[in-house]
Amino acid sequence: MRASFFRYQAIGVVHSPFKSPEEIPVERNASPGGFDDVRGEIEIDPDFAAGLKDIDGFSHLFVLFAFHRTTASKLQAKPPFDTEVRGIFATRSPHRPNALGLTIVKLEGRKGRILRVSGLDMIEGTPILDIKPYTERDRKEAFRTGRRAKS
Amino acid sequence: MRASFFRYQAIGVVHSPFKSPEEIPVERNASPGGFDDVRGEIEIDPDFAAGLKDIDGFSHLFVLFAFHRTTASKLQAKPPFDTEVRGIFATRSPHRPNALGLTIVKLEGRKGRILRVSGLDMIEGTPILDIKPYTERDRKEAFRTGRRAKS
Repeated sequence: MRASFFRYQAIGVVHSPFKSPEEIPVERNASPGGFDDVRGEIEIDPDFAAGLKDIDGFSHLFVLFAFHRTTASKLQAKPPFDTEVRGIFATRSPHRPNALGLTIVKLEGRKGRILRVSGLDMIEGTPILDIKPYTERDRKEAFRTGRRAKS
Repeated sequence: MRASFFRYQAIGVVHSPFKSPEEIPVERNASPGGFDDVRGEIEIDPDFAAGLKDIDGFSHLFVLFAFHRTTASKLQAKPPFDTEVRGIFATRSPHRPNALGLTIVKLEGRKGRILRVSGLDMIEGTPILDIKPYTERDRKEAFRTGRRAKS
């Protein structure tokens, strides 16, 4: 039998110019680079700071985080700028069965356990669960996003 | 105060040709496409199947999963084919403070709540926590992976 529940601990926190979900302009979602100019910090807790060794070698990082302000869990939702209700796993909506978020940020600099990043789309105080390097394997040359196609 | 712990539920399970971590040839990690030919299935539990609507529109999917067989949590480790010990957040090692995994798979087909995928690097029985579409925003044109650079 597989275990069904898993428990994770915040290892750090996001410092963002957005103080609440309402402050994030929805228009930023309209283009792939819509958050590129949003700068902020990722502060890793002292207990986990040793895990940041060599992180400076990577220009882009996956940040896995908790959508801690989400209250609704939906199976379907209408994304911004879409015309139809979609399955939640075909969207990046925060209202998911597991409120897990994933954003790729650009590492602009580091001071000890503080990472200065751009490309933030999280709000101030977002709990960070993990950081992973973005590598060659994660860049897909040919891919298809058919969200707006009739299904 | 921010909450420090978060609890997530398996929404499905991986069916993989690899039955244990030891069965995964380490050589596959040596090239970006090292797992491209590994095929298997992602089975979403019936309770969450409605969330898969429209997923067929995407060729690539992020799969967030639990490294359920991991027992060690390390802050530093030596990756395969590396010569130095690195900070765990600069690696994709399963031995992380939070045993969360992230793999991008290619969606080859779908039968209801079963996704046929390639690019699997998880073992049989891996619990799935979330699926997200891979979009234009996730493909970074210019990036740097300096793991092997002297730090």
